[in-house]
Amino acid sequence: MKASTVTVSVAAPERYAYIDITEELQRAVKDSGVTEGAAIAFCAHTTCALLINEWEDGALADFRRHLTELVPHDGVYYRHDDFDVRTQNMHDDERRNGHAHVKSMLLSATSHAVPVVAGEPALGTWQRLIFFELDEPKDRQLTFHVFGL
Amino acid sequence: MKASTVTVSVAAPERYAYIDITEELQRAVKDSGVTEGAAIAFCAHTTCALLINEWEDGALADFRRHLTELVPHDGVYYRHDDFDVRTQNMHDDERRNGHAHVKSMLLSATSHAVPVVAGEPALGTWQRLIFFELDEPKDRQLTFHVFGL
Amino acid sequence: MKASTVTVSVAAPERYAYIDITEELQRAVKDSGVTEGAAIAFCAHTTCALLINEWEDGALADFRRHLTELVPHDGVYYRHDDFDVRTQNMHDDERRNGHAHVKSMLLSATSHAVPVVAGEPALGTWQRLIFFELDEPKDRQLTFHVFGL
Repeated sequence: MKASTVTVSVAAPERYAYIDITEELQRAVKDSGVTEGAAIAFCAHTTCALLINEWEDGALADFRRHLTELVPHDGVYYRHDDFDVRTQNMHDDERRNGHAHVKSMLLSATSHAVPVVAGEPALGTWQRLIFFELDEPKDRQLTFHVFGL
Repeated sequence: MKASTVTVSVAAPERYAYIDITEELQRAVKDSGVTEGAAIAFCAHTTCALLINEWEDGALADFRRHLTELVPHDGVYYRHDDFDVRTQNMHDDERRNGHAHVKSMLLSATSHAVPVVAGEPALGTWQRLIFFELDEPKDRQLTFHVFGL
Repeated sequence: MKASTVTVSVAAPERYAYIDITEELQRAVKDSGVTEGAAIAFCAHTTCALLINEWEDGALADFRRHLTELVPHDGVYYRHDDFDVRTQNMHDDERRNGHAHVKSMLLSATSHAVPVVAGEPALGTWQRLIFFELDEPKDRQLTFHVFGL
């Protein structure tokens, strides 16, 4: 039985940018020495998401547009951003990112579990692991936990 | 290799209430004796959800409002609640909760996998594990499975 | 410590069809010999989803209707389907399935982790594991990884 945990940092160039992190996952699996098991991908933040889907610019643009139509970041009142009434978790560089919290909860894409077969994450032909920044760009920490035989 | 499974009960005070269950997760991890591994949080129900996000009243209120706008519980026909045509899974205290099934499937937030590092769930600074009741309040069973070294 | 990985194929009769795959999960758990642990269910595709919810025709129809209203497959421009501008990942039988990619990312329901207790997946009374085809019917591969004691 083997188990290995690694953390990688990513930083998107702008809000709503996607970053393909499939190779980071593959490297974590390879470095773990696990040949049969599973890998957990975990995003330690509340205003971004991990997606598993195709890396095709059109599909990613389509999703960005749909999600921002469903949960706009302008023209809608977010109580999270109403600093006249809010008292919890305020800090010095507090941002107006209520929209990103709502998007993040709607997606509920904080973690994924991917089987490992023959020393590789068993992703399908078109599947990529994708980081999706919903907020102003920040340094983000992603954790891969790989376990198995 | 260690593995431990515990079930905890929660009951929300009302529909759309949130309950912070991070401490229950932390206790399950601590009690398991696992120092490096992962924890699975699982909600054994079809009309509620587990979220990982910030516990800030405004953000939680924003999400509640958005979700109920996307999937209203009034003014929309739900075939699940049409007891004139429905035949499956009827029981004595059947509730009109078609909206909650749709919300639950949309969120697809039945399980999460969280890495365990140094004997603690490796949640980010602002991340809390949150139970979200979408239906009339009921006793709910949540299961934590912790495994690793 | 035991670990077992099996792949099963499913093929939906039509777009938006649901298939109950709970028995396939139960069989994978039983065949693994694991009595306490967890099972990962993983869908190796980008235009379908795995749901955990009640198998009741009305609820499933309600969800289908809501999801297709939120993300229509007609009357909306999808850049993924604009073969005049698209250059990536084109292949001979490319389908117009931009809507299905958006639905799939919105659901983010590629994997689930289910505790295993007493040799059974610890699903709640009404929970079923359900494959949901969002695209034209295709052969689909689902992987179950079961691990534990």
